[in-house]
Amino acid sequence: MTIKFTIEAKDTGSDARTGEIATGRGFFRTPAFMPVGTAATVKGVWPDQLREMGYGCILGNTYHLYLRPGHERVRRLGGLHRFMGWDRLILTDSGGFQVFSMSGLRKITDEAASFRSHVDGSAHVLTPELAVEIQETLGSDLRMALDECVAYPAERSEAEDAVRRTTLWAGRSVAARRMPEGGMLGIVQGGMYPDLRRRSVEEICALPFDGFAIGGVSVGEGKDLQRETVDRTAPMLPASRPRYLMGVGTPGDLLFAVSRGVDLFDCVLPTRNARNGMMFTSAGQLTVKQARYKDDPLPPDERCGCPTCRTFSRAYLRHLFMQGEMMASMAMTVHNLYFYAKLMEGAREAISRGNFADFVKESHDSGIDRDRNPKEVESL
Amino acid sequence: MTIKFTIEAKDTGSDARTGEIATGRGFFRTPAFMPVGTAATVKGVWPDQLREMGYGCILGNTYHLYLRPGHERVRRLGGLHRFMGWDRLILTDSGGFQVFSMSGLRKITDEAASFRSHVDGSAHVLTPELAVEIQETLGSDLRMALDECVAYPAERSEAEDAVRRTTLWAGRSVAARRMPEGGMLGIVQGGMYPDLRRRSVEEICALPFDGFAIGGVSVGEGKDLQRETVDRTAPMLPASRPRYLMGVGTPGDLLFAVSRGVDLFDCVLPTRNARNGMMFTSAGQLTVKQARYKDDPLPPDERCGCPTCRTFSRAYLRHLFMQGEMMASMAMTVHNLYFYAKLMEGAREAISRGNFADFVKESHDSGIDRDRNPKEVESL
Repeated sequence: MTIKFTIEAKDTGSDARTGEIATGRGFFRTPAFMPVGTAATVKGVWPDQLREMGYGCILGNTYHLYLRPGHERVRRLGGLHRFMGWDRLILTDSGGFQVFSMSGLRKITDEAASFRSHVDGSAHVLTPELAVEIQETLGSDLRMALDECVAYPAERSEAEDAVRRTTLWAGRSVAARRMPEGGMLGIVQGGMYPDLRRRSVEEICALPFDGFAIGGVSVGEGKDLQRETVDRTAPMLPASRPRYLMGVGTPGDLLFAVSRGVDLFDCVLPTRNARNGMMFTSAGQLTVKQARYKDDPLPPDERCGCPTCRTFSRAYLRHLFMQGEMMASMAMTVHNLYFYAKLMEGAREAISRGNFADFVKESHDSGIDRDRNPKEVESL
Repeated sequence: MTIKFTIEAKDTGSDARTGEIATGRGFFRTPAFMPVGTAATVKGVWPDQLREMGYGCILGNTYHLYLRPGHERVRRLGGLHRFMGWDRLILTDSGGFQVFSMSGLRKITDEAASFRSHVDGSAHVLTPELAVEIQETLGSDLRMALDECVAYPAERSEAEDAVRRTTLWAGRSVAARRMPEGGMLGIVQGGMYPDLRRRSVEEICALPFDGFAIGGVSVGEGKDLQRETVDRTAPMLPASRPRYLMGVGTPGDLLFAVSRGVDLFDCVLPTRNARNGMMFTSAGQLTVKQARYKDDPLPPDERCGCPTCRTFSRAYLRHLFMQGEMMASMAMTVHNLYFYAKLMEGAREAISRGNFADFVKESHDSGIDRDRNPKEVESL
């Protein structure tokens, strides 16, 4: 079956909604955050741990898996799910954002994105058709059309060109589709130009996609402009289809976008920041290497029930981090992903109960997006 | 209570025995392998995973914990068990082997070992009394007397001097003991000189230790000389007390020593080799980066039921390893520690059943100590 998106409850005071996305493989509840598993692994976390946290869909990177170990190899080994030991859903991006990120190494024409591998410098040509083929070969459940992402700031002409090309590629992606199972999502571009965003929405949403993503954010535009873009763009996307905000963001960013009717998120923040010693907590961001935690016997977040908070103190995590121990990254990644999972779970429940606004207010009052210790002078 | 060592069954064809070591905190069955948790973490493994594998005792490093985060800090944070989230037993070494390892940075007199920290170059003096105090402050269950370890090869006079000093320090360690709970083990030295080993055994075993360790092996003497030393030394140690072979070894080394009546082992091999991409399997050692595993869908060990073998293929682990993904180390560490846990479990059961010789033969026939792919020409 293709995907089935069911909205089960709508918030009364905002555009937030909760429901589920189902495919032949299974389903997961929305709004949902999807941990990023770039190279067929969510760094530092066992698949079982992701399942226990309640994650129902994770993200894989087409670009990385295409280069290594190669999508054909993954197929021979039983597909991406079996390869990485994950039996729930997987969304694969199209590779567009990765190609965009390597500015010096790529060339984009209407035909294709040409780039050199970040691994070995070898030359590759990524067409919309190939992006679909790679994703279908990997066997992901939700697949993205190849888009062209522009940096911020971008000239209007540049953003306009990317909108045109993204639409062109979106049509070719739809035509290239061979796998009936699962879904394909189109991506809206347009930079920070409201009329270009509108044009992109109109063009992309005219195509038979199973859902729609807001791309081209989290590229350096800053929080205000990002929220403005989400605020304007999300409501234009068809309410009956899943809306996906790509590459966003902090806990506060997520709640904001949920209130604007966004259903799906992915972001490296919880995993990457964990490896850099930063934890998200209900009272704000905690930087574990700060000297104040040397003797702190408390768990990272006193309101958290994750395996890390149940077992380890801030002092212990600081010790592990300062020693460069793997367990530092492992434990802080588990905490952050658990925190994100619980945040989304809380949002879903609040929407169901009809008091999402209260949930957002409580989350902000407790300080989720604050720096927990803003005045700390670093003294290791 | 101090420690209670109970022998429950003895092998008929060898000196192997199985039983348990109990302290006020709990007990674990012997013969037992103890994973090494140098800096208050067994690298890459959650405490829960160690428990699930059946480990009842792990090792902590006095030298490392003394330097960082400091034993007094660990005490303030509730002791080593609470600090690292491990509620079963912990054995701490005395720091002697670490001081021995930093040849250029240390000076040893009858009074103490003086050394410079490998971390920041600061000067430290480790006396037998301090080694006891650090371990008691950490709150470990089994503690080791400070010894002097000599390299291989060593002049007779050097080995003799180390025997004398180790005995001197052993007496001071016993006298320095303040904590009645748990046990203290003495260490036998003597290099590869049989008569010095005998002298050291006589002197150390005359002291009121709760168990005895064979130290000064795994220092470059090679497998044959090591086994010779174990073969000669183990039977001289009192049969009623636990015997501990320090820093050993491969699966075959362990089974050999068990057959000579050794009860306890620790070694970095399963954990360190895992991080280097080497797995112990029932059919031999598997080096995961070998090109032959690129497309190999089999689990690392087809006879293994560990979380890694249940979930991941050799091809996937190779991919993770080549990508430098944390999960490579995590998954291979879990496999290797599981393999060691099962090996010891198998040994215990075989001794109980009275067919330890068969177990050893089967293990060797299946090839536990072989290089699984000796003729592989590396072609990545």
